[in-house]
Amino acid sequence: MNRTELINLVFSKKSFLCIGLDTDISKIPSHLHELEDPVFEFNKAIIDATHDLAIAYKPNFAFYECYGTSGWQSLTKTIQYIKTAYPGQIFAIADAKRGDIGNTSQQYARAMFDPASSGMDFDAVTVAPYMGEDSVKPFLSYPGKWIIVLALTSNKGAEDFQFFQSRDHRLFEQVLSRSQTWCTNANMMYVVGATQAEMLTDIRKIVPDHFLLVPGVGAQGGSLQEVAKYGLTRDCGLIVNSSRNIIYASHGEDFTVKAREEAASMQMEMELVMKKAGII
Amino acid sequence: MNRTELINLVFSKKSFLCIGLDTDISKIPSHLHELEDPVFEFNKAIIDATHDLAIAYKPNFAFYECYGTSGWQSLTKTIQYIKTAYPGQIFAIADAKRGDIGNTSQQYARAMFDPASSGMDFDAVTVAPYMGEDSVKPFLSYPGKWIIVLALTSNKGAEDFQFFQSRDHRLFEQVLSRSQTWCTNANMMYVVGATQAEMLTDIRKIVPDHFLLVPGVGAQGGSLQEVAKYGLTRDCGLIVNSSRNIIYASHGEDFTVKAREEAASMQMEMELVMKKAGII
Repeated sequence: MNRTELINLVFSKKSFLCIGLDTDISKIPSHLHELEDPVFEFNKAIIDATHDLAIAYKPNFAFYECYGTSGWQSLTKTIQYIKTAYPGQIFAIADAKRGDIGNTSQQYARAMFDPASSGMDFDAVTVAPYMGEDSVKPFLSYPGKWIIVLALTSNKGAEDFQFFQSRDHRLFEQVLSRSQTWCTNANMMYVVGATQAEMLTDIRKIVPDHFLLVPGVGAQGGSLQEVAKYGLTRDCGLIVNSSRNIIYASHGEDFTVKAREEAASMQMEMELVMKKAGII
Repeated sequence: MNRTELINLVFSKKSFLCIGLDTDISKIPSHLHELEDPVFEFNKAIIDATHDLAIAYKPNFAFYECYGTSGWQSLTKTIQYIKTAYPGQIFAIADAKRGDIGNTSQQYARAMFDPASSGMDFDAVTVAPYMGEDSVKPFLSYPGKWIIVLALTSNKGAEDFQFFQSRDHRLFEQVLSRSQTWCTNANMMYVVGATQAEMLTDIRKIVPDHFLLVPGVGAQGGSLQEVAKYGLTRDCGLIVNSSRNIIYASHGEDFTVKAREEAASMQMEMELVMKKAGII
């Protein structure tokens, strides 16, 4: 999906909501446990119930890998379902935080982006920048695919290294500026945690147009209003993720209804924010 | 495997060799392609041919994930084979470069260390430090398991951020010193690329006793002699990885013979290095 298509998706759905599929078998409704692949059935039901309200879904790989091969199978079925049931309507993000030396990142890129090899056809992958340019560039060899580089994360540990300070700037600022020499705002985004909303002013000075993937709204305490206030651009420029608040809105048989209510509430708030900013 | 057991392994095998299982189906001998799981059969044959010469094996996850579910299955069978065929004789490293917010890293830890959940029972996992303490600590909740934190990597991109300079030290030095407040030399190691051998003097000032996992000897141009000169400790303190030079020593039916010859040559060089240093 290219940048224009992504922006069109945002404006047609009046939403910049990403739903995080952090699917934990111990938290999904018990009636699904009788099915052959409860994790996939849960994801499918959540997607079906919310696909018109969200522009993106973001399976979190750890929640699948912890079940080994069967988890990987649920993950593969999930991305295949997204692509066949809702073609062109969903931006699918592999939240995998990968990154390694060049020949290894090339294999990770195949895993995420080459369905003939791995069965998976995500639109984007989250990457860790620690190993630098050649650990990231192999992901860019697939046209229409995106990398989402960790810049400033939502967790407490962000303070350990991301704020590491040189004479005149911090590591996350170095990541933002250096990585712009690798590619463009048409195939790169950044992760900026919602809990770091007050930093968005500084961040927007360095990356005025790039899309930002913003986790941490909801369970982690970030505010959508704050994020939009400092992060919204003319093209929207934001993809705000919510996971637990939506997918676990209910643990009962009404889980899709409650998930839709939560997603609809966020979509409406987003529409309002976009109207207020005069971009729709 | 605890630190004492690991050191015993090094001294009993007179080796600090790790063999990287970067198994690429396009590079393995063609006669294996007829078998049901060529990647696993290749790994099994390599392990059987070299298990007395190497102390560790390091499957590189990317090379399995690129084949999707079936790749994950080959990976699972490989770690299960190591643990059942050679119990207590091999330190098994998940080269996965993981790291995410706490609740997510907890799931990655289950994937690597909890065979009841994922089928996999590695001894150690490589982790990316960018997200800080709470992204790394969940891996330490499994007794006897290790984290191997990326410090200074072997690739060119290491220059982009790892050398980012504050007033009096660089990011990789910050990683080395800060991470020592999280755990001890009995459950943490560091990745230091062999191509960075000249930096080992500085590194050993900060981490005098920790084991270092050193990739980059061979195909990437690093020298075992240089690494040993600056990195060896009384307890050895090194695990030197070689992948392509050993596993692809031959592409023919004699691949196990040639792999063994390469591994034996490295083991002998390591034994000599340890003798010369007076530690055996």
